[in-house]
Amino acid sequence: MKGNSMMKLGVSIRYLGYHMAAWRHPDVPADGSLQFKYYLATARKAEKACLDMIFFADGVGIRAADTPKGALSHDSKNAELEPLTLLAAIGAATSNIGLVATASTTYNEPFHIARKYASIDHISGGRAGWNVVTSWSQEEAWNFSKDEHLGYDERYERADEFVDVVKKLWDSWEEDAFIRDKQTGQFYDEAKLHIAHHKGKHFKVRGPLNCARTPQGRPIIVQAGANEGGRIIAAKSADVVYSAPFDIASAKEYYLDLKSRLAQYGRSKDQLLIMPGLTPYVGRTRQEAQDKYDQLQELIHPISGLSILYSAIGDLSGYDIDGPVPDLPQVNNSIGRSLIEIARRDNLTIRQLYKLRASGSRQLIGTAEDIVDDMEVWFKEGAADGFNLCPATLPGGLDDFVEFVLPELRRRGLFRSEYEATTLRGNLGLEKLTFGK
Amino acid sequence: MKGNSMMKLGVSIRYLGYHMAAWRHPDVPADGSLQFKYYLATARKAEKACLDMIFFADGVGIRAADTPKGALSHDSKNAELEPLTLLAAIGAATSNIGLVATASTTYNEPFHIARKYASIDHISGGRAGWNVVTSWSQEEAWNFSKDEHLGYDERYERADEFVDVVKKLWDSWEEDAFIRDKQTGQFYDEAKLHIAHHKGKHFKVRGPLNCARTPQGRPIIVQAGANEGGRIIAAKSADVVYSAPFDIASAKEYYLDLKSRLAQYGRSKDQLLIMPGLTPYVGRTRQEAQDKYDQLQELIHPISGLSILYSAIGDLSGYDIDGPVPDLPQVNNSIGRSLIEIARRDNLTIRQLYKLRASGSRQLIGTAEDIVDDMEVWFKEGAADGFNLCPATLPGGLDDFVEFVLPELRRRGLFRSEYEATTLRGNLGLEKLTFGK
Ligand SMILES: Cc1cc2nc3c(=O)[nH]c(=O)nc-3n(C[C@H](O)[C@H](O)[C@H](O)COP(=O)(O)O)c2cc1C
Ligand SMILES: Cc1cc2nc3c(=O)[nH]c(=O)nc-3n(C[C@H](O)[C@H](O)[C@H](O)COP(=O)(O)O)c2cc1C
Repeated sequence: MKGNSMMKLGVSIRYLGYHMAAWRHPDVPADGSLQFKYYLATARKAEKACLDMIFFADGVGIRAADTPKGALSHDSKNAELEPLTLLAAIGAATSNIGLVATASTTYNEPFHIARKYASIDHISGGRAGWNVVTSWSQEEAWNFSKDEHLGYDERYERADEFVDVVKKLWDSWEEDAFIRDKQTGQFYDEAKLHIAHHKGKHFKVRGPLNCARTPQGRPIIVQAGANEGGRIIAAKSADVVYSAPFDIASAKEYYLDLKSRLAQYGRSKDQLLIMPGLTPYVGRTRQEAQDKYDQLQELIHPISGLSILYSAIGDLSGYDIDGPVPDLPQVNNSIGRSLIEIARRDNLTIRQLYKLRASGSRQLIGTAEDIVDDMEVWFKEGAADGFNLCPATLPGGLDDFVEFVLPELRRRGLFRSEYEATTLRGNLGLEKLTFGK
Repeated sequence: MKGNSMMKLGVSIRYLGYHMAAWRHPDVPADGSLQFKYYLATARKAEKACLDMIFFADGVGIRAADTPKGALSHDSKNAELEPLTLLAAIGAATSNIGLVATASTTYNEPFHIARKYASIDHISGGRAGWNVVTSWSQEEAWNFSKDEHLGYDERYERADEFVDVVKKLWDSWEEDAFIRDKQTGQFYDEAKLHIAHHKGKHFKVRGPLNCARTPQGRPIIVQAGANEGGRIIAAKSADVVYSAPFDIASAKEYYLDLKSRLAQYGRSKDQLLIMPGLTPYVGRTRQEAQDKYDQLQELIHPISGLSILYSAIGDLSGYDIDGPVPDLPQVNNSIGRSLIEIARRDNLTIRQLYKLRASGSRQLIGTAEDIVDDMEVWFKEGAADGFNLCPATLPGGLDDFVEFVLPELRRRGLFRSEYEATTLRGNLGLEKLTFGK
């Protein structure tokens, strides 16, 4: 019942907020992404608000190209703390909030990943989660002795096997394998040790993992990847999916598709929670909310704005930024073409176009009522089991959500006021895992 | 001055203590190596005692063979927390103690290692250290899609290049590279970003690291490996060497050799601290100390005892454990031959021989005076700059050291009563690093 009547809420706390100009906001500490205390304070706020989890996106390298020249040095997303060490450190200093971080299957080894997340699950008393991604940039490949990023099919084939191996390693030891009988000297029961002996196309991993079964049975698996490869992994193994739909129609379609795939793997619909990303701008009035949004949009440096358009349309630094978007016939990718169409249709300047493009996730601008109305429709109409908040600025964006939106969600009975459990699995309302199932 | 008159002290806190039967000791919590609180309590004790650092050894897999059959299930060293996540978590909950953990250059990628230790250095405010090892077991290879462990030369060649790459990545950003000017929108100064563009035999790593220069300039580099390959890396790059000599003559030779290699790399003798391992058994009387030792030796399960002898001599489980050590002519490795010689010379039973072999580091059994006498001679005669304590049991072995040995060390002016600094580098008395040097 509860699992169905209440929505789940996570909050993405990488960097200084999800708006690209967040660091220039007067209330944002621009050096925050190198300060443990900054992350910890946000995690504790999220915990005080009884959110399900904090979430760290990740990339193994600086991914953007420096075009136009100077774009990188105007970007705050180039130096930060590493998410797994952060997760462990935050785990030591909190007690209920779920702890999810991203790690790439393309540039890691399953043994390390299984071991580190298992260890965080132990350290935090059952609150760890792994967001499985395959990475996407050339720049990351260059940091790992590769000339090219793996192609789509191979990347997802590797990811699929990677997740299987990690799950096998997490099942190395049964829950009650360790006897630790000081009298007889027997430490574990051999019958309850399972050695993976995995031999696949991408990996040969013998096992066992040198870490015991974790408080959650295994850490939570999160998947973030919208296309076929990601959907297969999600349906087979994930507990949570983070998605990034921009409208309710596509969100419903995605939701339905994923939920209907579960049966193939002997799973029920409530074993996978779908949580779309959401960036709320909330004010006491609609105007106040709009002002908050406009203030940030104004802070986008033109060179950063141009860099957003670069990958889709090319380098526009030769044009008047407050003039029309040129119709460049050489743009032949679908995102670029549709951007140019929008610009022509709505008569947008270059500045207006990059502002339009600046947001990475769906935005809601309005009063608490407006925002909760929207969330409630998505939740009740089968587009979402909850949301992954991507505050525009941190800590401000989370503070606003807690102050204005949460009370309204609670008034409508849509969100908890107290944690139900001490593990992430428990709070997400997911069934306890039985060994070997 | 101070750096020379006071010794440095680290403490190894992996597992439940360094005696193989530690877990069977009545005062040791046998499930401790899966409990964050257990490690944290020990780290805090070490911090209260003003020790320089805690140290985690590591292996990426269960390394022992299960011979005789059942040996593994009588061993406590098979499931534990992972050291880098532990280090970060302990860093969040302490404020002065140095934090050193082992990571293998054979089964890791330089980018991940540079990034994770840098992050821990930030999280802890300048207390991180990396113990560089190359691993040594077949079993670890099997967890990383390899059939064989790399041979000695290739392993150390890779290690040498690995350390170079990590150092380059740690030098990606100058200390004052980040301007973060909210007015102009400039985040960093391009002239202070250095992209490694490393291309070597084992690695191609472009960089830069997506983490800022750390509070210590870079994390401390520790090296543990006694042979030529390890010595080269130590002389070139290490700040600290952990060694495992068993007598003062070989310790002095090693000390002299390492210190005299430093000049080749433009380094002075005080830029590398040599800290041999030491397992103290201390009592109010010599008899009390001896009793503590004997108690643990008694707790070695015969099957575990036989497993110690296995790699050198073979499986002796068919022989009477309290009878003489058989003279097996097929034993042709040097350790095995010398063990058999000792056994014949001193008329040892199998049980007596494995007890002799049970300790991994040099033991001192006696009163605080006895132990400090020995430590002082090593320190003053050029065999050590300090010691890496490997307590036989935890927390008991550390408690005893703090209660009995530390006051005597302090009485003689050999160890601090207060931290000199908040960074590990500062407490070790190492010079502040200047960028590019
Ligand atoms: C909500 C969401 C969050 C994501 N977070 C990350 C991330 O933190 N790091 C990363 O490398 N990729 C991330 N991705 C990218 C995916 O791994 C994937 O590469 C991308 O969605 C492209 O989709 P596809 O690979 O399924 O085609 C994310 C994707 C989505 C939808
Ligand atoms: C004091 C000391 C501590 C060591 N700790 C580790 C460790 O934690 N993990 C590991 O894989 N190897 C460890 N080693 C092993 C070394 O990496 C190395 O493989 C071993 O000393 C064999 O020496 P060599 O490789 O120089 O021949 C340690 C060695 C010494 C001397």
